[in-house]
Amino acid sequence: MIRKEIRLSGSGGQGIILAAVTLADAALEAGFYGVQTQSYGPEARGGASKAEVIISDQPIDYPKVTTPDIVLALTAQAYAKYCDDINPGGTMIVEESLSADDCPESALRVPILGTAREVGKEIVANMVSLGVLAATLKKHIDKEFIEKSISKRVPPGTEELNIRAFQKGYDMIQ
Amino acid sequence: MIRKEIRLSGSGGQGIILAAVTLADAALEAGFYGVQTQSYGPEARGGASKAEVIISDQPIDYPKVTTPDIVLALTAQAYAKYCDDINPGGTMIVEESLSADDCPESALRVPILGTAREVGKEIVANMVSLGVLAATLKKHIDKEFIEKSISKRVPPGTEELNIRAFQKGYDMIQ
Repeated sequence: MIRKEIRLSGSGGQGIILAAVTLADAALEAGFYGVQTQSYGPEARGGASKAEVIISDQPIDYPKVTTPDIVLALTAQAYAKYCDDINPGGTMIVEESLSADDCPESALRVPILGTAREVGKEIVANMVSLGVLAATLKKHIDKEFIEKSISKRVPPGTEELNIRAFQKGYDMIQ
Repeated sequence: MIRKEIRLSGSGGQGIILAAVTLADAALEAGFYGVQTQSYGPEARGGASKAEVIISDQPIDYPKVTTPDIVLALTAQAYAKYCDDINPGGTMIVEESLSADDCPESALRVPILGTAREVGKEIVANMVSLGVLAATLKKHIDKEFIEKSISKRVPPGTEELNIRAFQKGYDMIQ
């Protein structure tokens, strides 16, 4: 059975919900079952927020992420907050410029924010992130599905910019 | 304890996820805990889809909607599919032009699609729907929170259109 629990995290306004919804859409098109969730609470206001996706080849009974297989963090606050329940064999992906004392030692450090700025706007950091996640999941979901979902989900006229950011993120991971 | 389980449903492309995320954002701002979820599976492809929000004044342990208090349906397929587990005391809201045999008798029938077209574009049916939901929830969440969330979540330049659609939906419910 394939079950992947994926957590995207950062601050509100970084477009992580859109990235997560896009990933879930693509998983559906690729034939998987999925659940996409965000939780809200007073602790989230003005601080770290996360969006989660569960992808499975079986119907998903329990929709809660318990031990994420992949955690991606775009801010120090999100990194510190959401790193600690990661599956020991899982993949921690963190924006290169960040560090956090209480997180597991091994993490994939990637220049997500810098790359987004290079592509043109820091606002596409979510799509760079999605590219990194797509490369991490490429054994299960062909990137074409994610590209198609991006084109469907981003505001009309912004498809090219967002796909370019996605590709840059994808290419970071060999 | 306040716990409201809300289900928005329709077809993919009708913007129901955005409406649900916007509602959850507003609930957070209003001081509630929330969980916002969509499930994906082969049965969803090309057909009915739903987006759910749980709003509570207590931390939410179980993130699954089991007995929705409010169900809103924009298509006949979604109506037929998602009406049957509604809380017996709950509110069924359905696009006026639809009917379904196996759904509970009493439903609030509202001209959501027609109103969206009047406002200018059928694509704002999700915001008309959000207005209807806001009016239904007004004892718990002041509509101002939802208007603020709309302005933050819709593509720049479309705020006025979307707020107008929202207000039309809100005004339908006395």
